[in-house]
Amino acid sequence: MYILISNDDGVQAPGIQALRDAMRTLGETIIVAPDREQSATSHSLTFHQPIRATHLDSETIAVSGTPTDSVMLALRSLLDRQPDILVSGINRGPNLADDVTYSGTVAAAMESTLLGVPAIAFSLASYESENYQVAADFAATLVKQVLEHGLPQDVLLNVNIPAVDAGEIRGVRITRLGKRTYQNPVVKKEDPRGRNYYWLAGTPVNTDLGTDTDTYAIENDYISITPIHLDLTHYETISHIREWEVNLWQNRT
Amino acid sequence: MYILISNDDGVQAPGIQALRDAMRTLGETIIVAPDREQSATSHSLTFHQPIRATHLDSETIAVSGTPTDSVMLALRSLLDRQPDILVSGINRGPNLADDVTYSGTVAAAMESTLLGVPAIAFSLASYESENYQVAADFAATLVKQVLEHGLPQDVLLNVNIPAVDAGEIRGVRITRLGKRTYQNPVVKKEDPRGRNYYWLAGTPVNTDLGTDTDTYAIENDYISITPIHLDLTHYETISHIREWEVNLWQNRT
Repeated sequence: MYILISNDDGVQAPGIQALRDAMRTLGETIIVAPDREQSATSHSLTFHQPIRATHLDSETIAVSGTPTDSVMLALRSLLDRQPDILVSGINRGPNLADDVTYSGTVAAAMESTLLGVPAIAFSLASYESENYQVAADFAATLVKQVLEHGLPQDVLLNVNIPAVDAGEIRGVRITRLGKRTYQNPVVKKEDPRGRNYYWLAGTPVNTDLGTDTDTYAIENDYISITPIHLDLTHYETISHIREWEVNLWQNRT
Repeated sequence: MYILISNDDGVQAPGIQALRDAMRTLGETIIVAPDREQSATSHSLTFHQPIRATHLDSETIAVSGTPTDSVMLALRSLLDRQPDILVSGINRGPNLADDVTYSGTVAAAMESTLLGVPAIAFSLASYESENYQVAADFAATLVKQVLEHGLPQDVLLNVNIPAVDAGEIRGVRITRLGKRTYQNPVVKKEDPRGRNYYWLAGTPVNTDLGTDTDTYAIENDYISITPIHLDLTHYETISHIREWEVNLWQNRT
């Protein structure tokens, strides 16, 4: 088995090292990941400058770009054969609910899925914990299951692991994405010259309290696995809009 | 009516100016947009540095960040009241099929939708044309319709306009997102010191030839309107994964 590993915390992050150690029990590994932290870069690509790829050792390549750049470069240029799976992470901090759309960790898995390689994104639901061992152990278990069962085309898995000891994990839940908003997401400050500047921050508030959500699972010490798809079309709305007057627009010329 | 306008080509781009002129026929406008080009930044946020917001005039604010930063800052700090709608664009170049996940133009509309303001992303399907007039005229028509009919919660519209004269537009199609892949997406080069570097590029190839897709509409000179949603959960897969052995993981400790 050949396993591609990426992340958005950068190639030196402890989370990706723990993930690599776990993956080595399953097969051959190659890390292709950003050379520095690229959190909240979402599914962004680097178009306006060239990208470097530096071989740190025979199993580690650092890329001067985003997680999406790293995966595209790996799968379309750097690797000499197609990996069986991509694993992304283990991210420092959760990737839950709407926040998955901002996440570089999830974006790496999206890019891999778009390019035809099954993918899983792993996140440890804490910004403080340095203990990635439980998450890494679970990653090895799940990767084996994904390779056995397969994933539907264009579906990836987004996995969050509570930052508690293995014995305190209450189990695994297959969830849907919750909803969250941020309280006070913008902090306004003034510089020494009297000009304003802003920090994006905020405190997440879960607004969907369903017990089948990823946010509920993590708050209750369950591992959360959410299947995520990439077809953003909202099919139900298509027929509604077909009744709008806008469809008559061709007649105005 | 109060209309917020953003984009990813930057505040000086001709597309956003044409869009503003069209929106002025409908109500009061405010541009809050990146101070420079931010294409392919996807739904990324700036967390690791402060953001500046510069008032260029009473109706134009330039933000030192991404499209998503701009919309969050506008809706959560800069504006004194909630706009009725956000329009994003008019982007230089198409945003079709899977490429919507990379697009900063679409991400601005996503962020607005997440923050409760209905949103539409507009793109002119050409990198060469400077004629945004047809697209801007259509934007005014569509905005009126959206304000009349409303949009379902968490649904935005992604609109692509062919870069042809008004008389050559064959009509409006309400579409689903197509699928495309890129041929030769990575170009490898060598610098004067013999080290490799890479450019991301490539030629898009449509792999879903359905006549109900956005790619088909644009290729055949129709305006394409695709409703897009933000719930990435793949519900059908949840029950499948619930049958996997991974759910027994709690028993291993």
